[in-house]
Amino acid sequence: MTETAQPMPIIDCDVHNRFKDAKLTALWRYLPRAYQEDVREWGINLPGVGYLNGGDRGYRGDSWPAGGGFPGSSLDLMREQLLDAYHVQCAILLGQELRPLSTLPNADYAAALARAYNDYLVEEWLAAEPRLRGAMLIATQDIPQAVKEIERIGRHPGIVEVLVSNGARLPYGHRYYHPVFEVCEALRLPFALHTGSEGSGINGQPSVAGYGSYYIENRQVRPHGYQTHIASLIVEGVFETYPTLRVVFIEGGYSWLTPFLWRLDADWRSLRHQTPWVKRPPSEYVWEHVRFTSQPLEEPEHPSQLLEVFKWNRAERTLMFASDYAHWDFDSPTDAFPRMPDDLRRRIFYDTARELYGLPAPAAAPLTPSTTA
Amino acid sequence: MTETAQPMPIIDCDVHNRFKDAKLTALWRYLPRAYQEDVREWGINLPGVGYLNGGDRGYRGDSWPAGGGFPGSSLDLMREQLLDAYHVQCAILLGQELRPLSTLPNADYAAALARAYNDYLVEEWLAAEPRLRGAMLIATQDIPQAVKEIERIGRHPGIVEVLVSNGARLPYGHRYYHPVFEVCEALRLPFALHTGSEGSGINGQPSVAGYGSYYIENRQVRPHGYQTHIASLIVEGVFETYPTLRVVFIEGGYSWLTPFLWRLDADWRSLRHQTPWVKRPPSEYVWEHVRFTSQPLEEPEHPSQLLEVFKWNRAERTLMFASDYAHWDFDSPTDAFPRMPDDLRRRIFYDTARELYGLPAPAAAPLTPSTTA
Repeated sequence: MTETAQPMPIIDCDVHNRFKDAKLTALWRYLPRAYQEDVREWGINLPGVGYLNGGDRGYRGDSWPAGGGFPGSSLDLMREQLLDAYHVQCAILLGQELRPLSTLPNADYAAALARAYNDYLVEEWLAAEPRLRGAMLIATQDIPQAVKEIERIGRHPGIVEVLVSNGARLPYGHRYYHPVFEVCEALRLPFALHTGSEGSGINGQPSVAGYGSYYIENRQVRPHGYQTHIASLIVEGVFETYPTLRVVFIEGGYSWLTPFLWRLDADWRSLRHQTPWVKRPPSEYVWEHVRFTSQPLEEPEHPSQLLEVFKWNRAERTLMFASDYAHWDFDSPTDAFPRMPDDLRRRIFYDTARELYGLPAPAAAPLTPSTTA
Repeated sequence: MTETAQPMPIIDCDVHNRFKDAKLTALWRYLPRAYQEDVREWGINLPGVGYLNGGDRGYRGDSWPAGGGFPGSSLDLMREQLLDAYHVQCAILLGQELRPLSTLPNADYAAALARAYNDYLVEEWLAAEPRLRGAMLIATQDIPQAVKEIERIGRHPGIVEVLVSNGARLPYGHRYYHPVFEVCEALRLPFALHTGSEGSGINGQPSVAGYGSYYIENRQVRPHGYQTHIASLIVEGVFETYPTLRVVFIEGGYSWLTPFLWRLDADWRSLRHQTPWVKRPPSEYVWEHVRFTSQPLEEPEHPSQLLEVFKWNRAERTLMFASDYAHWDFDSPTDAFPRMPDDLRRRIFYDTARELYGLPAPAAAPLTPSTTA
């Protein structure tokens, strides 16, 4: 890596803030009274899928706070290991424990969890550190409630996107979700997907062949879900109906993009009479409307292959850096990428995210709690 | 294309023979009496998934026989449009109507359909034309019956592989299927997958997010299923347990392979302690054990990109030509490929398939019905 007097600014698009304890005690006070009582008795009770993860219970071995609590639960340690260590100008918090809330059978409980998490995020994280921004959660079981929640909290200056899971009951282009895109567009909030919830709870099985036996297999369905959602968003005409909408695909890989689009473009040329509202080749919608985060960056046999992929994928406009702090497969900003031209590096590590999220330049302005709702 | 006095020999690995009529009348006499009566009353009654296909009811407009019947049902027209037209030395028949039989709830009915189709294939197609070979069907609902069927018909010299659908109830590496691999290995029959049955019948939904709305979306889950099955076959240790087994992936794309393997290899390096019987990087098992057919060949922006993909994917050993006759997205042997070196061309169009299927060289020997079981 080249060392310069002025380090290149970094926006980290995937950082995981966590609760200190497994019971999510800090969340309780943001929940309606009835659910507080349930949660005390039963726990949060989100469905899982039962795979054993890697690393130290899923995290970097050095990320467990000395004072106790889960990795990602200590802002001080996050500052030390990420924000200060790599001169991160802005980090987007994507939470952890509550992202699977759309796997719950009960739509009202899921919506209450989303509201509670969003309030907790604003009050206990975004207000505490000016370099942080946050993704708000919605529960997709009840779209009118999700729309109300975006209208309620989505204008907060620290909230920069609306976040859902890859695993879902319907592909995200389906007309069922369109009211969400309408409000995202109105509030200039990207719609973001994070991997997870594939095959759990009400989402149903994650592949054409049910469930793999091991966690490594469950990691392979992440790109499959993302391709399913991209195809759906395009062929259902979402980007024609919502022409300024942006969609972000987080932690689901990147090098599959162009081969996937070769296939989708070819199929569109043959089958476009079935979806005449799709006016351009699918790839063109992707270059304009879709962004990806980098971690876990693929590891080809030769670094030149990754640079070839970057060229095919228009990385200068579609790729944004993410570290995935503090998971075990964390990508360091200084080590994870091959050597590449400074201007491309700056697009990936900073400019594309700044443009997408409308972040202030050059230094992130502190968020004063008094400006919040 | 270069014109030579002696055309390069071709093995076509994906040709679809069909029945003349929608009721599959020619099949009835091969079924047990009880099912014959059911089929007369109810039809074959295979589950579908309800997407509208492309082309002329799914086929090349010129492939409907003048004398009536479905495309692929006339051997004379197949000779004229494929075998003679392109000097195809050997074509592998993969059937059409009965491939979804593993979507049926009733295991015995499905097994009876497989047996009936296999007998029909041998007697009415393979015996009629020496350039034809066939893939035998099995019903995966009952593995011991499937094993018996392979033992019964799999030694016929015209049967060159055991065929199943991409859509399945379990990924194909699962221990549930291992007795099939044992007999495939013993009889030196590759285990082959053809796209189809994704999301239909008892297979369950085809993605992490249920069903897309349009056929173009259903086409995108084909590579997803293939990646699911490849990961499963490798991490369940199938290629360690059955070291001479070969697996063929038909009509599910090819250019996704190397980016997929970058991901899978990296995940294996991090997670191999969970599957210690997987001794080599996943890509190495693929190069040795897995083959792909070409149609529908991807269409990149520049032909050089496809040649780059061929290099990454070791096309000289992993790729085999297929036309998909008589479907609408038929790939012509003379037009579908970019210009490439003669030795690579010969590997793809001939040598790899000849080695895999143990076909005679240089001219296919006629199959005399007297040598059959």
